[in-house]
Amino acid sequence: MEFLVRSENNLPRDTPEHVQRQLRAEERQRAQELREAGILRRLWRVPGRNAAIGLYEAADATELHTALTSLPMWTWMDISIEPLATHPQEMPPS
Amino acid sequence: MEFLVRSENNLPRDTPEHVQRQLRAEERQRAQELREAGILRRLWRVPGRNAAIGLYEAADATELHTALTSLPMWTWMDISIEPLATHPQEMPPS
Amino acid sequence: MEFLVRSENNLPRDTPEHVQRQLRAEERQRAQELREAGILRRLWRVPGRNAAIGLYEAADATELHTALTSLPMWTWMDISIEPLATHPQEMPPS
Amino acid sequence: MEFLVRSENNLPRDTPEHVQRQLRAEERQRAQELREAGILRRLWRVPGRNAAIGLYEAADATELHTALTSLPMWTWMDISIEPLATHPQEMPPS
Amino acid sequence: MEFLVRSENNLPRDTPEHVQRQLRAEERQRAQELREAGILRRLWRVPGRNAAIGLYEAADATELHTALTSLPMWTWMDISIEPLATHPQEMPPS
Amino acid sequence: MEFLVRSENNLPRDTPEHVQRQLRAEERQRAQELREAGILRRLWRVPGRNAAIGLYEAADATELHTALTSLPMWTWMDISIEPLATHPQEMPPS
Amino acid sequence: MEFLVRSENNLPRDTPEHVQRQLRAEERQRAQELREAGILRRLWRVPGRNAAIGLYEAADATELHTALTSLPMWTWMDISIEPLATHPQEMPPS
Amino acid sequence: MEFLVRSENNLPRDTPEHVQRQLRAEERQRAQELREAGILRRLWRVPGRNAAIGLYEAADATELHTALTSLPMWTWMDISIEPLATHPQEMPPS
Amino acid sequence: MEFLVRSENNLPRDTPEHVQRQLRAEERQRAQELREAGILRRLWRVPGRNAAIGLYEAADATELHTALTSLPMWTWMDISIEPLATHPQEMPPS
Amino acid sequence: MEFLVRSENNLPRDTPEHVQRQLRAEERQRAQELREAGILRRLWRVPGRNAAIGLYEAADATELHTALTSLPMWTWMDISIEPLATHPQEMPPS
Repeated sequence: MEFLVRSENNLPRDTPEHVQRQLRAEERQRAQELREAGILRRLWRVPGRNAAIGLYEAADATELHTALTSLPMWTWMDISIEPLATHPQEMPPS
Repeated sequence: MEFLVRSENNLPRDTPEHVQRQLRAEERQRAQELREAGILRRLWRVPGRNAAIGLYEAADATELHTALTSLPMWTWMDISIEPLATHPQEMPPS
Repeated sequence: MEFLVRSENNLPRDTPEHVQRQLRAEERQRAQELREAGILRRLWRVPGRNAAIGLYEAADATELHTALTSLPMWTWMDISIEPLATHPQEMPPS
Repeated sequence: MEFLVRSENNLPRDTPEHVQRQLRAEERQRAQELREAGILRRLWRVPGRNAAIGLYEAADATELHTALTSLPMWTWMDISIEPLATHPQEMPPS
Repeated sequence: MEFLVRSENNLPRDTPEHVQRQLRAEERQRAQELREAGILRRLWRVPGRNAAIGLYEAADATELHTALTSLPMWTWMDISIEPLATHPQEMPPS
Repeated sequence: MEFLVRSENNLPRDTPEHVQRQLRAEERQRAQELREAGILRRLWRVPGRNAAIGLYEAADATELHTALTSLPMWTWMDISIEPLATHPQEMPPS
Repeated sequence: MEFLVRSENNLPRDTPEHVQRQLRAEERQRAQELREAGILRRLWRVPGRNAAIGLYEAADATELHTALTSLPMWTWMDISIEPLATHPQEMPPS
Repeated sequence: MEFLVRSENNLPRDTPEHVQRQLRAEERQRAQELREAGILRRLWRVPGRNAAIGLYEAADATELHTALTSLPMWTWMDISIEPLATHPQEMPPS
Repeated sequence: MEFLVRSENNLPRDTPEHVQRQLRAEERQRAQELREAGILRRLWRVPGRNAAIGLYEAADATELHTALTSLPMWTWMDISIEPLATHPQEMPPS
Repeated sequence: MEFLVRSENNLPRDTPEHVQRQLRAEERQRAQELREAGILRRLWRVPGRNAAIGLYEAADATELHTALTSLPMWTWMDISIEPLATHPQEMPPS
């Protein structure tokens, strides 16, 4: 099942630079693992903000929650989720 | 997967009474079929409104959409859906 | 009477890990007591968030308030409540 | 249990005057019955609007729903409800 | 004139317990004085929140402001006010 | 007591021109009467909209409601009201 | 440039069935043309609603507007658009 | 003084095509007059909607209101206005 | 040109009392200067809040911005502004 | 492609004055570079607020994001972006 996941990253601005770099590297690595697991499909930047919109695929919301909370910066993220249904135009002809 | 489904019924007030009765009977019957299929789990009335909140279970949002659009009064409904993840407190002890 | 209870947990991120573990354990225990008292009926996780949606049953809003404020993490919770009326489809046939 | 009930009356403006008078008379009468039943406690006008705020008391949201839908003009009303808990300052000293 | 007063109490959670007890006692006492002055008519708890809804009566908004700002915890309160007009159904028959 | 009154005029666009002229003339006349009665103090146009913001003065919200509903176009108006308290800077020196 | 396009279809419910079928067929065909032109990338159904979320790619907002207004049902659509920036994680390694 | 003017055009969809063409032509002509008068500075289309955002310049909000209401399609427009102050970076060096 | 200016004063509660007194005195004095300059016309208190609504008059939004930012407590204020157009009923008969 | 960029500057009030001056100078300089690059077209102050509205032009949202994040005070800014399509009235006659 596909989900649209909107996340604002509220990592405090005064977080030491080296910690930020470390977290971003770990975040990039974990995201890559989620890509390889077929969970993270696409990721866009919301222009002008420290925020992203992602297209995720998971068996259900419970699996999605597990994936999202595995992101190193999850605890600083304000996340909202929209469930997506398959559109008739993208269904294989019956 | 479980979903919380909120629906406002905007059936026009001037719909002839006999049509309303017919639709409500068909709605009740279809809802019962969804219960028996294990899709409609619980249904509550929003006090004071022609609106309901339902707990549904479906494989994914696509199956849920199919179930909801099969309700006779769906075309008059304003629906919003929240995906629900299993809470750790309700998970079987690992 | 049934209520839908939505709660965002705003426990500060920099709360020491051991305190968080302690609070979560106490929370789990208190929730279990509320289950056994027939007050907490169902509990879901809002996917992606440190938030939950619960189905509660209490004599009235006053009893519900007492139950919720008995939760160890209540003071950090942002809670909103919806009263639920019994739906005609779930009423015993008259 | 007490409830705060907010209702906007959307009776179409072009409803014939005699129908409006009839409805208002029936509404006043039904409201009086609800007062005598101890269900309708107080009723205020929202200044400037065809809207009211009422303090209601009912066993639960289901009984409240039954009372509200018994009002002749209910079908034209846009209603929202807030459950009220007893404030500690209004509890008899324990 | 009657007013509906909604107040969220944002007293910081880390306020020392004895200070909180002191403030609550002073708040209770001041509220009682406002009751005796006929200004505070009813007070309800918003279930699940450190918030209240009150029915107040004052000559005008200026007197109401004076009463509210006299509450010891006013400075931590987020308050919104709705003016209430007398409903025709509660007017003495002309 | 002073009130800020915001009103959107939703007179249907297809109202015959002569009816609109008649209503506007009656509206202007009634407004003038309210000015002379000291109830309507100031009136501004919301630029770009068929809407106005008015400064009214009335004994209370009930009197204000009576004044507003006496306006010929009231039934087409969407009105919201803010109670105003006297600012310390505009109080006579104590 | 990529855009997230959210559209609610407000085709009047009482549109004759054959007209609806005709419009849906034309819509499906036009959407297919936009796919082949590389403009419409993905399309999802918002579960429970006559609404869709689409991932579009266009040179700019003007080209996107031209594409959207070419959809037969555009005139009945309530559309909102979010511009998407490429996320660093999806940029080719510099 | 500059203003940002946002307008949604709610011209009914079933307005005869020839009337729509006529109105659009008159609208284009009037807009051109406002450009030549230095009142309409820039005009953008909100992508996907029958809506526009305009940069206007007028002596004050009253003159702006007069200009906007002179547009043939004004009566079908839902308009909101933001006043703009000159930014220090665009002020001539003092 | 007239403006309606809404301001919430977010001066931190733990600001030392003598600093608050000093700021309020300076604020009162500056406001008086703005009155004498014909810029600040009326000022009301929002009942129950540390907030005000003011009627200001200035050549344009730039002059208004300069006036508002000259207030000693401006930096703690959350301000929103509505431009006001002269109402036909308050225009001198043409 | 043009964008409307709204930004609230949340630079903490207790930032030392010399740091604020330094940041503002760097911000002014960077903005000037963006002007010269044809990216920043116009900039207005939101009257009464430490906020701005800018008209930007960039190849796409990714280039816009790069430009905005190059501003020294970006990390303290709360930014929202609206994509703008060319209006037919501003298109060269076809």
